[in-house]
Amino acid sequence: MAPTPKKILNNPRNVVDEMLDGLALAYDGTVERLPGKDVLIRTDLPEDKVALLIGGGSGHEPIFHGFLGKNMGDAAACGQVFAAPSPDIIMDAAHAVHRGKGVLFLYGNYAGDNMNFDIAAEILAEEGIVVRTVRVADDVAAAPPERAKDRRGIAGDIYAIKIAGGAAEELDTLDEVERVARKAVNNIRSMGVAVSAGSIPETGKPTFILADDEIEIGMGAHGEAGIAKQKITSADEVADQIMGKILTDIELVPGQDVALMINNLGATTMMEMLIVNRRVRQILAAQNVNVHRTDIGTYLTVQEMAGFSITLIKLDDELKHYLDLPARSLGLSNM
Amino acid sequence: MAPTPKKILNNPRNVVDEMLDGLALAYDGTVERLPGKDVLIRTDLPEDKVALLIGGGSGHEPIFHGFLGKNMGDAAACGQVFAAPSPDIIMDAAHAVHRGKGVLFLYGNYAGDNMNFDIAAEILAEEGIVVRTVRVADDVAAAPPERAKDRRGIAGDIYAIKIAGGAAEELDTLDEVERVARKAVNNIRSMGVAVSAGSIPETGKPTFILADDEIEIGMGAHGEAGIAKQKITSADEVADQIMGKILTDIELVPGQDVALMINNLGATTMMEMLIVNRRVRQILAAQNVNVHRTDIGTYLTVQEMAGFSITLIKLDDELKHYLDLPARSLGLSNM
Repeated sequence: MAPTPKKILNNPRNVVDEMLDGLALAYDGTVERLPGKDVLIRTDLPEDKVALLIGGGSGHEPIFHGFLGKNMGDAAACGQVFAAPSPDIIMDAAHAVHRGKGVLFLYGNYAGDNMNFDIAAEILAEEGIVVRTVRVADDVAAAPPERAKDRRGIAGDIYAIKIAGGAAEELDTLDEVERVARKAVNNIRSMGVAVSAGSIPETGKPTFILADDEIEIGMGAHGEAGIAKQKITSADEVADQIMGKILTDIELVPGQDVALMINNLGATTMMEMLIVNRRVRQILAAQNVNVHRTDIGTYLTVQEMAGFSITLIKLDDELKHYLDLPARSLGLSNM
Repeated sequence: MAPTPKKILNNPRNVVDEMLDGLALAYDGTVERLPGKDVLIRTDLPEDKVALLIGGGSGHEPIFHGFLGKNMGDAAACGQVFAAPSPDIIMDAAHAVHRGKGVLFLYGNYAGDNMNFDIAAEILAEEGIVVRTVRVADDVAAAPPERAKDRRGIAGDIYAIKIAGGAAEELDTLDEVERVARKAVNNIRSMGVAVSAGSIPETGKPTFILADDEIEIGMGAHGEAGIAKQKITSADEVADQIMGKILTDIELVPGQDVALMINNLGATTMMEMLIVNRRVRQILAAQNVNVHRTDIGTYLTVQEMAGFSITLIKLDDELKHYLDLPARSLGLSNM
């Protein structure tokens, strides 16, 4: 019997190794894999720049390792499926990417990632490599505003990477790049809805169970509990719920510029996301909020999970500038 | 009971109408919907250009209506789910997009589309609007080489749109744009594999049935029969099968430049496609074929169908030039 759901893989224990080979090739020469390591790095790194190191568990492709390039991440430290990269992998990546101006670690706020990136940062500091850390914590479903630092990082990662990547290309000091990345992160809010579970490629086991007529609002990227399990409802009602929660968490004045991302967690159709976008835009128009840029697609997945998340980032001119810089990567390209 | 599979929709009968509203908004001002019509059109059309009109059934998003913009399609005529646009819709689109230099119709080769686009072309000719038609017929599984004109259009549509769109931006006559589009189409080959079915959003009914341990090689974008139903096998073996069929159909000499697309039919993980890419690149490297550009992502879907297709296009300098022109659209962006 084939595992359920069916996936087209070779040996399930080699998925990350083979995936990283295939991913490096997909970059058409702009990114390579460090031989024998779970690290991807740009081949066109300027000699004298602040380095942006991103990373996290695999299985969420295209994030993180699909967002490397000019004006994006400089290197990625890649964990196994749904698991943080080890301190060794992070150290290897940091050594390879450092260009004498320090390294910014930018990743999603999860206990395993925090621990491993922090261990690596400590050892690197002893070696004389200056590291700063910015964690994305955009999931408003994960903790109330007074504990915003405890929130998970979800699709807001992508806007954070895009902005920090632009800043790391143009700004001269780690201090300045960190400042811009932190400003981006402080202005991002996201929330998702799960419609069906993804599964672990090594075992075929689903990450959680939802009844046939249920969805879960606010579910995390690995199946962490959300705000409410509820009967499946209309696209407009789901959009209202998610936007209601986001908009009570972030103050938007009339005329405010934002970027809007609707991220496919895996198996949701673009038709559904476009129908949700219609409602999201009605809500934002009613508040006179100006959508400077829309990104609807597949950026952070949980394997074949069905569901999506909505992300808003409040933009000032500086954030807009870095967000709009051209880029080309597997996960996001920008003219 | 919720329909199986669960989708986040409003009234299922309004999916196309609501989707087109949401899609027009996702273009951030570069595309608008003709009021009350199932037509999307660029807002930044130059006054004096050959017009590129694309289109087809909905439900395959982001194709077709997600590929509009400078150096891509100028307008799209949109059908209901899995149904060709009516001649009326095509006529409305053609009237709106025509700029005095003729209109190129570019779409996938399906009986319904052929009939309706041809009816519209005839009426437009009577009105004095010159129309030429290029049909994409890239699915090598659909007919043998001697009946290549009978093949279905699948993900090769995207490369055809990108190249024809660039040509329609830069070249001055319909003759020349048609010549380039036809050259592109003649050099594209694709084949897919279905792992599980998509379903029709209005009814929730699956488009076909595959056993739990079966896949179908060469299946069409609506569930048309493929080459073989077979037990699920490894990623490398599936890649070998598909590439074997494509490479016997198109002559590639050592040093030949190609572009390579691996298209997600819906619910397949990027991890699987990257593992397939690893094998595809081994096969191409063994033949000394040079991959000029790789596109791995979600371009032509069949709702939540799991599976993917592989597309190769043989590139000369002219095709490379138009393929590489910058573009920004929902479905494909290019730096």
